[in-house]
Amino acid sequence: MLKFDEQKQINDIQGALALRPQVEKMVDELYDKGFDNIYYLGIGGTYASSMQAVTYINGKSNLPVYVQHAAEYYTTGNKRLTKDSLVVISSVTGTTEEVITAVDEIKKVGATIFGFIDEKDSPLAKKCDYVITYPEPGTEQLKFFMFADRLMKNNGEFDDYEDYYKELDEHLAKDLVEAEKQADEFGLAFAQAHRHDAMHYFVGAGNQWGATYSYAMCYWEEQSWLRSKSIHSAEFLHGTLEIVDETTPVTVFIGEDEQRPLSQRVADLLPRICGDYTFIDTKEYELPGISEKYRGRIPTVLLMHCVTQRIDAHVEKLNRHPMDIRRYYRQFDY
Amino acid sequence: MLKFDEQKQINDIQGALALRPQVEKMVDELYDKGFDNIYYLGIGGTYASSMQAVTYINGKSNLPVYVQHAAEYYTTGNKRLTKDSLVVISSVTGTTEEVITAVDEIKKVGATIFGFIDEKDSPLAKKCDYVITYPEPGTEQLKFFMFADRLMKNNGEFDDYEDYYKELDEHLAKDLVEAEKQADEFGLAFAQAHRHDAMHYFVGAGNQWGATYSYAMCYWEEQSWLRSKSIHSAEFLHGTLEIVDETTPVTVFIGEDEQRPLSQRVADLLPRICGDYTFIDTKEYELPGISEKYRGRIPTVLLMHCVTQRIDAHVEKLNRHPMDIRRYYRQFDY
Repeated sequence: MLKFDEQKQINDIQGALALRPQVEKMVDELYDKGFDNIYYLGIGGTYASSMQAVTYINGKSNLPVYVQHAAEYYTTGNKRLTKDSLVVISSVTGTTEEVITAVDEIKKVGATIFGFIDEKDSPLAKKCDYVITYPEPGTEQLKFFMFADRLMKNNGEFDDYEDYYKELDEHLAKDLVEAEKQADEFGLAFAQAHRHDAMHYFVGAGNQWGATYSYAMCYWEEQSWLRSKSIHSAEFLHGTLEIVDETTPVTVFIGEDEQRPLSQRVADLLPRICGDYTFIDTKEYELPGISEKYRGRIPTVLLMHCVTQRIDAHVEKLNRHPMDIRRYYRQFDY
Repeated sequence: MLKFDEQKQINDIQGALALRPQVEKMVDELYDKGFDNIYYLGIGGTYASSMQAVTYINGKSNLPVYVQHAAEYYTTGNKRLTKDSLVVISSVTGTTEEVITAVDEIKKVGATIFGFIDEKDSPLAKKCDYVITYPEPGTEQLKFFMFADRLMKNNGEFDDYEDYYKELDEHLAKDLVEAEKQADEFGLAFAQAHRHDAMHYFVGAGNQWGATYSYAMCYWEEQSWLRSKSIHSAEFLHGTLEIVDETTPVTVFIGEDEQRPLSQRVADLLPRICGDYTFIDTKEYELPGISEKYRGRIPTVLLMHCVTQRIDAHVEKLNRHPMDIRRYYRQFDY
């Protein structure tokens, strides 16, 4: 299978899950210390992952957890981000300039900064009060959700925590590679059909909204140089639907959290107005050993990424466009 | 001038400003009563206006004010929206189904609902604890900002409140129609150049981000049936920029609040990578009688709408596409 190293992918997920004792120790300490508000802070892909984590928490928890956009922070500010706040960041390189600028401002305020930074000697890693280093990109969402889950456990909102992670430790990594194998045929067919789309619309909601947003922007636009637009399922019905006709390519990411009905509503409408729709429904994939009640947490979030990863691998090959080249990003100063 | 009734537009703004004594009385009462959190709740266009108001407040105030998406509320919920919370809504028809569903859920929680509802006998008007009726659409942002300003004044964060509104009462309405006249030539040229664009990118930040989002979705997509994508200025540099080349139509909304530098950065980059860019910079328009320090509040928000309104009027005529027709929205059940 193209661009697929089964054992490495299993190791990556298992390795991220193995960070849990570290995460727990730090989160427990932070929870005991107390906080007024918690901010997942990011830009671009990390902003998307932050939206996923915060939507996930909002559906289950009373904790005051918010998304804070890095560049909005150092321009507009946020007076409710105080010395007693907890800020959670993630970075692969540890050098994203907007995040560095925001973190420098936050350090003046005195908030506590917790980072999942893949590069341990990077500028961002050095600025964090708490840092966990795990040099395998692609596990950011899992790490953000592990952080969230431990917070919710401490907050008395996740009684099944141990049982849940037992299932993840035992089954998740293997289940995801199996799902990815199952998705390969779909990925190829989708890539063949859509790799020259003038524009492709991606629609999603809930903890899949951040995935939808980042898939359109960080994968299609940034890595494959293909034009795409993401739109939240609920918002799709308040404007974007009017430009849809027989020939408009629209893909709906259908997950399994509380907002599934919003995406399902779009999926029910599309066949009546669109002749080029695709539904990626996580329900079509088994995750043996993972209880039904846990699927809507991190498992189906990661599952969606496994499916889209198959599209990307085939687009990259068919379009002869290496995903790691950039036209402009970090190529010159701007 | 096409689709331009100068006196009516002046009357509409002046009439909205004249709601201030009502707004003040209600906000003062609500402020004295106290609240834990305030939520601007909306969907589609009202979600966009909510984002504008909340970004505006965040830059200036310590008040716990948040955006709450209506459909996310009745699916995911929000445990920090309590009986002590204040929810602010706006609606032209008073019949938006997602907002009705959300408000019905919120009423069970017992939060206080304040509505600017244009239709006084509508379902939403009847559900509000406080309602202000003013049957002139197009003043929603002004009303949201008036509400915000009074809150901030009560919170000790707007000492110049009386001076500011004196300037608005005396000059804003007239200044806006003058700006709109100034923008007409630009609007025609822009419409001629872009009315057949296969896709148009709109970029903006700060209290112009909601305007950018709604302009792309509620005007181009919904009313003109033209394809467009909105992207926040800070996010544009983290993905979307890679699909820009000589022929990509990109328009940047440049306002005058704290996030102006984020849009300016995009405007500085675009000439180097794009051959079809447009900047709509509110600084190019005078607003006589409005102090420099007040321009970044509501004046330039409304000014941007006056400029884009000139584009829409010409697109409507040239494209022979009446802006009030809908293909799907409210045409059948879905």
